Amino acid sequence: MILSGGTGTRLWPLSREGYPKQFWPLVSARTMLQETASRAAGPGFAPPMVVCNEAHRFLVAEQLRAADIADARILLEPAGRNSAPAIAAAALLQAAEDPEAVLWLMAADAAIADLPALHEALDRAVEAARAGLIVTFGMKPTVAETGYGYIEVGPALTGVAGVHSVARFVEKPSAQRAADFLAGRRHLWNSGMFVATAATLVAELRRHAPEVISSVEASLAAAQRDLGFVRLGAAAFKAAPAISIDYAVMEKTTLAAVVPADIGWSDLGSWAAMWDASAKDAGGNVAQGPVEMVDSEGCYVRSEGILTGIVGLKDTVVVTTEDAVLVMPRSRAQDVKLLVEKLRAAGRKEATEHRRIYRPWGHYEGLIQGDRFQVKKIQVRPGQKLSLQKHFHRAEHWVVVNGTAVVQRDAESHLLRENESIYLPLGCIHRLENPGMIPLTLIEVQSGAYLGEDDIVRIEDTYGRS
Amino acid sequence: MILSGGTGTRLWPLSREGYPKQFWPLVSARTMLQETASRAAGPGFAPPMVVCNEAHRFLVAEQLRAADIADARILLEPAGRNSAPAIAAAALLQAAEDPEAVLWLMAADAAIADLPALHEALDRAVEAARAGLIVTFGMKPTVAETGYGYIEVGPALTGVAGVHSVARFVEKPSAQRAADFLAGRRHLWNSGMFVATAATLVAELRRHAPEVISSVEASLAAAQRDLGFVRLGAAAFKAAPAISIDYAVMEKTTLAAVVPADIGWSDLGSWAAMWDASAKDAGGNVAQGPVEMVDSEGCYVRSEGILTGIVGLKDTVVVTTEDAVLVMPRSRAQDVKLLVEKLRAAGRKEATEHRRIYRPWGHYEGLIQGDRFQVKKIQVRPGQKLSLQKHFHRAEHWVVVNGTAVVQRDAESHLLRENESIYLPLGCIHRLENPGMIPLTLIEVQSGAYLGEDDIVRIEDTYGRS
Repeated sequence: MILSGGTGTRLWPLSREGYPKQFWPLVSARTMLQETASRAAGPGFAPPMVVCNEAHRFLVAEQLRAADIADARILLEPAGRNSAPAIAAAALLQAAEDPEAVLWLMAADAAIADLPALHEALDRAVEAARAGLIVTFGMKPTVAETGYGYIEVGPALTGVAGVHSVARFVEKPSAQRAADFLAGRRHLWNSGMFVATAATLVAELRRHAPEVISSVEASLAAAQRDLGFVRLGAAAFKAAPAISIDYAVMEKTTLAAVVPADIGWSDLGSWAAMWDASAKDAGGNVAQGPVEMVDSEGCYVRSEGILTGIVGLKDTVVVTTEDAVLVMPRSRAQDVKLLVEKLRAAGRKEATEHRRIYRPWGHYEGLIQGDRFQVKKIQVRPGQKLSLQKHFHRAEHWVVVNGTAVVQRDAESHLLRENESIYLPLGCIHRLENPGMIPLTLIEVQSGAYLGEDDIVRIEDTYGRS
Repeated sequence: MILSGGTGTRLWPLSREGYPKQFWPLVSARTMLQETASRAAGPGFAPPMVVCNEAHRFLVAEQLRAADIADARILLEPAGRNSAPAIAAAALLQAAEDPEAVLWLMAADAAIADLPALHEALDRAVEAARAGLIVTFGMKPTVAETGYGYIEVGPALTGVAGVHSVARFVEKPSAQRAADFLAGRRHLWNSGMFVATAATLVAELRRHAPEVISSVEASLAAAQRDLGFVRLGAAAFKAAPAISIDYAVMEKTTLAAVVPADIGWSDLGSWAAMWDASAKDAGGNVAQGPVEMVDSEGCYVRSEGILTGIVGLKDTVVVTTEDAVLVMPRSRAQDVKLLVEKLRAAGRKEATEHRRIYRPWGHYEGLIQGDRFQVKKIQVRPGQKLSLQKHFHRAEHWVVVNGTAVVQRDAESHLLRENESIYLPLGCIHRLENPGMIPLTLIEVQSGAYLGEDDIVRIEDTYGRS
């Protein structure tokens, strides 16, 4: 079960609320969601269950499809209520089918470098879970990190090799305490992964967090199955307390256990963590994308396309996306959130949205906004179609540059091939569809006095938006 | 007379060979060329003469026109040969008309904050020039700068108040020497401005740099008057030694004089100099464009459009253009050239060219390059027309978004208004013209297997390019 609820603000400007960190390729060519799902693919694993923000549903489905992860179940949270309600929903759903099934809960946005070590630790955890425990994975600290929770390791449990009781969970400690933990060697980082049977999870949630379980049960009773998604009942789900599984259950249960494991884990929680987790050149620099460095060391420089050059920098982070640039010392990596808050307060859309906007049918991105015109690139996935719509303030020119389009314009239907175009006058009722086997790309030139996204009347929609 | 020959590499990525620093607004809403020309506009001044790279001719003409500088003469250098040949050309041209006219020579890319003080100094210089001297302007050093030439001030000249003889010119000194100069108070920065009569300049060039004067005389004899430009004869001009006026004349002549002047001069020779010359906030930061800062001091952050955020930086330069980002400590500002050299060696076009390309008729810029397509925004100035042309590998869709276009397509002529489009099939002969009174903007969508700029056959051209 994959929790895909984070917004990943500390990896701004790459990660933003509209398209957060778990959907980006951060450590490989695959996105973090794909990396995470692939860890639990193959013999012995059931298809994954993903709990995500409703706004990200098509993104999750598309990324899993692209990674050949079949039959995933996608649970949609009407609102973020922290991890306990999300886990409760997954556990209840699973318990209704097979209460003794073992659930492996994990965040969608952590990196794990050593997969054989992970699966070895997982085997131990599953054994302990079958014996009725809720098993966490403890990572050996390498620095006195104050951003993570810690697990104080208790005595080894008899019966399952490599599994210990938990003496205590400790939330994010002070710098002094973190240094003591590092020196004392009895504390491990809490990786946020858990293994337990559905029955155990439900029972312990019912015991220690009855309000969570009752709200989530009500939201499941009101759930709608919709285009392959499970849409939890909004009112009931929103009534659940927003609480983490750590507070709700782990700190209270007598069933907690820990498997100490050395698996190359990183939560990729900041650009400094990204630097830690990346391969470096002789000067300790990480360069990703079109980056040129002169006489620099210890830097993390990443560009999504715009040439980024640095001279004489030390221990500095530079991240360039198509519409935003971030520069800061690596040591200030946690403070990106201050900048994002400032941008949000200033009403800058770059704080939360990317230029590329994902829709159920594909995506679009603005290329230029001018005086009474704007240009967009639109990509429609094979077999998908946009809503039947009209605009009151703009006319549109569409030029197909890749693939094939069927365009409905009022009563007519037109088949457009590459290098063909069509004009949609103001007020006409139109619809765009990709009938082909490859993505359809078209350039849209809008012309009009008002060009906001809200000038749209949806007459009919495949995705329930009309 | 304005020398517009520099490439301004140290202000990369804003300034590049294709569109260097003098054509950018750096200290005001006007470009440096416009600032410079405006200093010599008004009663008592003849229209300016500008010596520039042939590639920049339409840019110079357009910027002067936009600043209401009328009747400028524009001399085109077939190649850069440093300042002496350029000055020789201007002086010879002027001497042929009026040898006693006083020439004021200045670079197109320096800032001068105090115009009344400048004009006061100029009055003194003109008086001394009429007496047969070649007058320089000496700026009081504020730091031990090693990037400038220095003038050791000699005794005051009798006859003209505030004009001194020159004891010696000193090229860029060592750090130690620069510190001595700053302490000793007898050395001034050489601002690179000169005042002398045409006759004096020609005579001294003939005396001290006879090869310069003879080559330039030959290039003037071979010059072509072309669309209002004076195009110097290429072979002869290229035969002139590439030498600065300082080496060629000033260090040898007995006629050198200096007017010490406090005019708020800066050569804007690096991003550190830009920081020096700009207004700062309470933290000593300069922010230009969409910039957001958290907890930073002494920084210069400039963006041409992409949101640029910094956190916790000190004395750092960040410059963002639409296709390149530069980050460095302010103290390393001179080393931008190392980065530009590296980029040039790597064949990155961002080293020398901007995304926006200037043409005699206006400009264009690429919005996106994709698989077998690209999109450009094209702007044509009122009354201008592109060449009559055809392409072998691409078809084009044009959508007019502002203004009016006349499009010739094979035997037909079409008038297109805002929100109208036309299709130009592969191989058709076509021409675009702006017949109107406002700029014409159109979006061009190209489609084809090869989309290089060199797939163009020019059949006829207003600007001599066919």
